[in-house]
Amino acid sequence: MAELSVDHLLGIKYLNEDDIQLIFETADHFKEVINRSIKKVPSLRDITIANIFFENSTRTKLSFELAEKRLSADIVNFSAGQSSVKKGETLVDTVNNILSMKVDMVVMRHPNPGAGIFLAKHVNAAIINAGDGAHEHPTQALLDSFSIRERLGDVAGKKVLIVGDILHSRVALSNIYALKLQGAEVKVCGPKTLIPKYIGDLGVSVETDFQKALAWCDVANMLRVQNERMDISYFPSTREYAMQYGLTMERLNQLDKEIVVMHPGPINRGVEVTSAVADSSHSIILDQVENGVAVRMAVIYLLASKIKSI
Amino acid sequence: MAELSVDHLLGIKYLNEDDIQLIFETADHFKEVINRSIKKVPSLRDITIANIFFENSTRTKLSFELAEKRLSADIVNFSAGQSSVKKGETLVDTVNNILSMKVDMVVMRHPNPGAGIFLAKHVNAAIINAGDGAHEHPTQALLDSFSIRERLGDVAGKKVLIVGDILHSRVALSNIYALKLQGAEVKVCGPKTLIPKYIGDLGVSVETDFQKALAWCDVANMLRVQNERMDISYFPSTREYAMQYGLTMERLNQLDKEIVVMHPGPINRGVEVTSAVADSSHSIILDQVENGVAVRMAVIYLLASKIKSI
Amino acid sequence: MAELSVDHLLGIKYLNEDDIQLIFETADHFKEVINRSIKKVPSLRDITIANIFFENSTRTKLSFELAEKRLSADIVNFSAGQSSVKKGETLVDTVNNILSMKVDMVVMRHPNPGAGIFLAKHVNAAIINAGDGAHEHPTQALLDSFSIRERLGDVAGKKVLIVGDILHSRVALSNIYALKLQGAEVKVCGPKTLIPKYIGDLGVSVETDFQKALAWCDVANMLRVQNERMDISYFPSTREYAMQYGLTMERLNQLDKEIVVMHPGPINRGVEVTSAVADSSHSIILDQVENGVAVRMAVIYLLASKIKSI
Repeated sequence: MAELSVDHLLGIKYLNEDDIQLIFETADHFKEVINRSIKKVPSLRDITIANIFFENSTRTKLSFELAEKRLSADIVNFSAGQSSVKKGETLVDTVNNILSMKVDMVVMRHPNPGAGIFLAKHVNAAIINAGDGAHEHPTQALLDSFSIRERLGDVAGKKVLIVGDILHSRVALSNIYALKLQGAEVKVCGPKTLIPKYIGDLGVSVETDFQKALAWCDVANMLRVQNERMDISYFPSTREYAMQYGLTMERLNQLDKEIVVMHPGPINRGVEVTSAVADSSHSIILDQVENGVAVRMAVIYLLASKIKSI
Repeated sequence: MAELSVDHLLGIKYLNEDDIQLIFETADHFKEVINRSIKKVPSLRDITIANIFFENSTRTKLSFELAEKRLSADIVNFSAGQSSVKKGETLVDTVNNILSMKVDMVVMRHPNPGAGIFLAKHVNAAIINAGDGAHEHPTQALLDSFSIRERLGDVAGKKVLIVGDILHSRVALSNIYALKLQGAEVKVCGPKTLIPKYIGDLGVSVETDFQKALAWCDVANMLRVQNERMDISYFPSTREYAMQYGLTMERLNQLDKEIVVMHPGPINRGVEVTSAVADSSHSIILDQVENGVAVRMAVIYLLASKIKSI
Repeated sequence: MAELSVDHLLGIKYLNEDDIQLIFETADHFKEVINRSIKKVPSLRDITIANIFFENSTRTKLSFELAEKRLSADIVNFSAGQSSVKKGETLVDTVNNILSMKVDMVVMRHPNPGAGIFLAKHVNAAIINAGDGAHEHPTQALLDSFSIRERLGDVAGKKVLIVGDILHSRVALSNIYALKLQGAEVKVCGPKTLIPKYIGDLGVSVETDFQKALAWCDVANMLRVQNERMDISYFPSTREYAMQYGLTMERLNQLDKEIVVMHPGPINRGVEVTSAVADSSHSIILDQVENGVAVRMAVIYLLASKIKSI
């Protein structure tokens, strides 16, 4: 049977194209199973998974938990709020302790870029990075590409625009890696101060005129505005941002074609996209959420197969 | 098979008498199953339920969770503390996101009256209102009536007194609807400022003399005093309240009959009721808690049957 | 079949030597089952356990939860943060309410010494004390002894040194009871202000010279320093403490024998023990964590057997 080239999902950067195809085909299978209302598959009855979240994340955590439950895995949840982290324990100690309890897989969100990579080197379990600072958020990028493939048939050759704060976004970075790997063209658009200087090195071009960028693309992935950052000087105000980079039906109607609209959620309605756009047939935002469970089931299942075969 | 007239449990206001009888007969069955130590019934193996609590509620949440676990449903919990709500997401977006993950039923507590009704209109899942502001708390009223029926054989024709802050109480309102629907007589008693003006329109009479009210009733349902409201000018002090409306053994002993004492919990011992009363044979307070699980199992089971038959 | 002499695990003080041996033999069995990757045993399918934590405790809670899940028990979690305790409810009311929902066993952590004992007198369920103030933490002591027995073959006759704040430590007190009961010799070492005056009455000697104490022992159990207490006048500073009582490789190398190093976790690396010591072959710190799950499975299983046989 085909298997992943990696033992962990630390970032899209470490995957090859076959890995992505294998994840997608496995997710296709799980999505069909879910849609036929066979909600639980007994694949992972002997696997225990720890969800370790050092940052709040309602929807990513929920999506992972549902994926794990549908695979019949056992779950233990560990949140920073109630955690030993506050007691000054190091990350490795925390996770080693959890693993000593015979946990097989760790899904971790952590504010530090590279936290998952560090962990994978020091502990004996399969690690899934559920977001590490501004670095990567690989399952989000996988579900985004899976949703594009579902709507447009393929990712290769498609023109994908990513709009917003590219500099601080792990969603943007993972998406760029995933899209390039699958042969898509990628452009970014956003305030100049929020476009990283190395963006060209990733094979990505920049378009500062939002309407021109829209005219170019097949898919517009509208990043979430982090309101908590809007106070900082080099950020525009929310109002300015909405004026310049907010996607409205007016902007969509000016185009001579249909484009697909994506958003990783949660949406600030009236900022990144208007309600009319979010709820229109252009939008695949709820498909992204739905596909998140199937894609995460696939990743967990494929990594667990490698543990069992050891 | 008999089924409910509704697809959601948004309030007692939307039920008819047959619905209540069907819920009670189903709860009878589940209570017997629990008491014979067959704690789990495999009825809902393919149903996923999201418990979405935008307000803290230890015991209601626990009761729902136990009911769901005993029906073998899959559960995901979502609390406001760790939620996207803080990120400015709208209620519909939050719930739509959860439903996109293929959740079948939502149990929701929300501070806004009507939140459940709004939700039921906009999302595609069975909604159970677990308390919406000062509006309704239907499962509490159902378990209260179920407990009266268990102790006194029937609800019809019984005289039920509700004591306390009627104005701000969803427990009071749901109880009034449920009791009237089943043919009970209802009187309320409490500080004048805390009795709503429209109370007569509900077919409910007012008695300001607590001892007279007790002499009238078969059942006294002692509402919880919200200490956090006691600072406000039109509320009496806790001490004054206890003096005027606190149920003591002395008051019970002055009656020429046995009455049944209820309390939705958690009790402020020495305020609404004394410890002696709470722990006496008059009290069915712990029966209410026990019946809560069976009644909630019945509601979930009956609503789930309607989902499956679609 | 052999059974425990008690219906609750409130403290080591209430156990006899046969109880401890029975717990260890049962834990041996569960540990073998876990290691053969048969992670779940269907022993407790009809038991519901409430984990009630009035104090934060990530690792103890996680360990209990894993033990319960591997025994296929149903679990409800109740944390003080979201609890009725804040609403002024008494402990007995809280727990009675939970038990009314047909819960069979309560695992409780509480800041008050004796909280578990009080509870066991007033409610009808098996109680496991998961730490009650500065009083006892019996499962920690059991897993500590189990880990010594695993490494050294036996506990009887072994010389065990406990280092640190003996005065405020439930881990120390439970360990002293457990070790003495099994025929070990126990010495304590730490700042004079943190050694209780009654220590001699427990059959325990004091050695203030840390290096001499190390030279004496077979096992050194290094208690966690509570940083939050370090501000108080009679406590040494963290730096002073580390200088005088911190276990380093230099100290270990000065000994003419191998000693076993234990720590209940979470470690303050560089304070109670250095990283080199914690990660050395002397250390059985991760074994302690691993054994915690098996020992807790044994305790829960043995207490549940007594419930079922009633």
